[in-house]
Amino acid sequence: MYSSVQKYTAELIGTFVLVLVGCGSAATAGEQLGFLGIAMAFGLSIVAMAYVIGPISGCHINPAVSLAMLLGKKLSGKDFAGYVVAQILGAVAGSALLYAIIDSTGQTVAGLGQNGFGEGYGIGISALMAVIVEIVLTFVFIYAILGVTASSDNRSTAGIVIGLSLVLVHILGIGLTGTSVNPARSFGPALLLGGDALSQLWVFVTAPFIGAALAAFAYRVLNSRT
Amino acid sequence: MYSSVQKYTAELIGTFVLVLVGCGSAATAGEQLGFLGIAMAFGLSIVAMAYVIGPISGCHINPAVSLAMLLGKKLSGKDFAGYVVAQILGAVAGSALLYAIIDSTGQTVAGLGQNGFGEGYGIGISALMAVIVEIVLTFVFIYAILGVTASSDNRSTAGIVIGLSLVLVHILGIGLTGTSVNPARSFGPALLLGGDALSQLWVFVTAPFIGAALAAFAYRVLNSRT
Amino acid sequence: MYSSVQKYTAELIGTFVLVLVGCGSAATAGEQLGFLGIAMAFGLSIVAMAYVIGPISGCHINPAVSLAMLLGKKLSGKDFAGYVVAQILGAVAGSALLYAIIDSTGQTVAGLGQNGFGEGYGIGISALMAVIVEIVLTFVFIYAILGVTASSDNRSTAGIVIGLSLVLVHILGIGLTGTSVNPARSFGPALLLGGDALSQLWVFVTAPFIGAALAAFAYRVLNSRT
Amino acid sequence: MYSSVQKYTAELIGTFVLVLVGCGSAATAGEQLGFLGIAMAFGLSIVAMAYVIGPISGCHINPAVSLAMLLGKKLSGKDFAGYVVAQILGAVAGSALLYAIIDSTGQTVAGLGQNGFGEGYGIGISALMAVIVEIVLTFVFIYAILGVTASSDNRSTAGIVIGLSLVLVHILGIGLTGTSVNPARSFGPALLLGGDALSQLWVFVTAPFIGAALAAFAYRVLNSRT
Repeated sequence: MYSSVQKYTAELIGTFVLVLVGCGSAATAGEQLGFLGIAMAFGLSIVAMAYVIGPISGCHINPAVSLAMLLGKKLSGKDFAGYVVAQILGAVAGSALLYAIIDSTGQTVAGLGQNGFGEGYGIGISALMAVIVEIVLTFVFIYAILGVTASSDNRSTAGIVIGLSLVLVHILGIGLTGTSVNPARSFGPALLLGGDALSQLWVFVTAPFIGAALAAFAYRVLNSRT
Repeated sequence: MYSSVQKYTAELIGTFVLVLVGCGSAATAGEQLGFLGIAMAFGLSIVAMAYVIGPISGCHINPAVSLAMLLGKKLSGKDFAGYVVAQILGAVAGSALLYAIIDSTGQTVAGLGQNGFGEGYGIGISALMAVIVEIVLTFVFIYAILGVTASSDNRSTAGIVIGLSLVLVHILGIGLTGTSVNPARSFGPALLLGGDALSQLWVFVTAPFIGAALAAFAYRVLNSRT
Repeated sequence: MYSSVQKYTAELIGTFVLVLVGCGSAATAGEQLGFLGIAMAFGLSIVAMAYVIGPISGCHINPAVSLAMLLGKKLSGKDFAGYVVAQILGAVAGSALLYAIIDSTGQTVAGLGQNGFGEGYGIGISALMAVIVEIVLTFVFIYAILGVTASSDNRSTAGIVIGLSLVLVHILGIGLTGTSVNPARSFGPALLLGGDALSQLWVFVTAPFIGAALAAFAYRVLNSRT
Repeated sequence: MYSSVQKYTAELIGTFVLVLVGCGSAATAGEQLGFLGIAMAFGLSIVAMAYVIGPISGCHINPAVSLAMLLGKKLSGKDFAGYVVAQILGAVAGSALLYAIIDSTGQTVAGLGQNGFGEGYGIGISALMAVIVEIVLTFVFIYAILGVTASSDNRSTAGIVIGLSLVLVHILGIGLTGTSVNPARSFGPALLLGGDALSQLWVFVTAPFIGAALAAFAYRVLNSRT
């Protein structure tokens, strides 16, 4: 048994790593990495963390994943709250360190890997399409998680598969919304940057939760043998 | 036992994801992803879907794969028909959402990740070479699938191996035909775009089926112990 | 038991795929793929082929690998000869199809992914350094193969590990010699192109064989428990 | 049982490969590889070496990893010293061969993949931030190692996971400090280049050791069931 403190600390550390490395790569080296490199930064954060904090907390590091686990009765209501608070704290800490790193160069901090949509962000999709894209991408990501973690056969490969699934949804999403699929990951940069990142934050909180609920529902309906 | 509705729905969802993310990456972010990034979009769609819809339907999400399974007596004629219809519906739905996403930016929809050949497409190979390329690439992809799924040792790695094999055939094929190896994946964009994508569609229906049949034949001849 | 014909045919097919996709990517889409994309083309050819022809022939698809297996007494002298002939035939067939593909565009065939060194090739290293680079890279590749295939624990991951090891040696080698580590892979393009590719071929035959012998020796000395 | 000579030689070879291929990719082909390609060069060195020298020495090829193992009582004091000396020798040898390769082109050797910070290196972060970045990235890398190697379930995937974790920390770190997380990897280029690489070397010796100690501490506190 791991204590609640151990579990919440694990979630905090994991989300810190995801936001620092994922958002940090986009903000400090987007040009040299290209979209695939940024996508790998997010996805490999999962790979690195899954095998060390997975055994403690399940390595959700994403409130939408925790919601799916709550709906699937694999997480208590109390732990859901604890996880989400820890994830938000980790994301804010990751964004704050990223801010300090860029600030130490003497240049203005122009971006922190924030999500967005509309004119001036990516290819400029509409708010409605941003909502739909985030719902669909979160669905894909979390439906994949539910599948691969269901069989003990995949014990040693699940972390790799989940990480690559996060790479996948970033490959398409970076140019559209920056890919959230994770309310905590969007909250960190938005809090520190304000502006559009903050005023558009509602999309990246609601849509991932809807996508997570749909994935949990689809899993229950489609993946039950009769 | 999974019901036919579950199986066909699984195939529809999987093909929807493959076309939305794969073709969508090419159409909205080809420049920033490069060929490798686009190839990863297609291949990682398999990785993400294999572990969740694989247990339901086998995760063919490709009529050419279903044909190979039919020829290998692992799929009934009725299910083959059901799978192909579901795959086509999924591909069309994926292309339609992609259309709507691009359309919401206010720009004309110039491409949907369609396949093609001849002057003005990739390096401009001939129709004959396009047929041969698609036969060979489909052969490679499906021969790899038949091998890795034959042994239960590979239960937890097969999805990764098949996904990486799809990355492989895209790395070479994107600049030649855009890489189909999958009639459904070609049908979606062609239906919505018309023009060359539609008039050249016959290549991307017939060649993958021929490649699949050859792979099934090669597997039977070469991979049988005596 | 697989027959000799099955084994040699498997090696022919595998080497054909490696040369067609690996060299083909470099020759037709090097710019859009970058060095990493080309490296992935070679490495993922191994991943795709390992699980389907590996059970038949071991999936050497490289005379230097076959030499290491001969030295390690895992391959008979007769099979070594049969494998090498099949590998060379596969490589020539892959290069020939690549030639036909490029030729069908109406453009002159300027390159087929050939190896080389000296002024005008990569960063222009000397012949001596080309020999050393090829010996070292082949050593790394084959020493990795010997390690990962030694334990049955790695049955389902070995193909991925070997493929990624081939990606590795290409990442460094492409800009230096184009990375051979495989006499057959160098022979195909050299035969069809002539010129420097042919006059420098000796490096890409001798150095990989030396690297393979050193890897077999290192494995015997370092990896034997006492 | 492997002898000390076998173990130290294995560490020497592994660190040689890491430095030659990782630093060599950055120095000779950074432009064509992009940050992701360079990151893959470092990470895949681990993948290639883990399965062949891992059984001998554990494949630390990094004094910071050896320190974490010493603190976790998985390595004796004597072996720690032997490992570190071997790692330094391997790194210097890798840098020396890289120097000779570049030198053979007739061009001045401008860089050997050295680490750094401040104006003129990457985005120009401060010394304090360089220390923090290296501590954090080393923590992430080594904490991941401790997790994945703790369970025998991961025997066949651990090398891949550790390699991808090294890719991860490079994706963010290349533009900041070049990513050391490994005192030996920084020592090799610094010794041969002198200048800033040497005067800033203290950061890349002390910070990785601090990060390793923190990872060992976090693992003991967080990953112990109660």
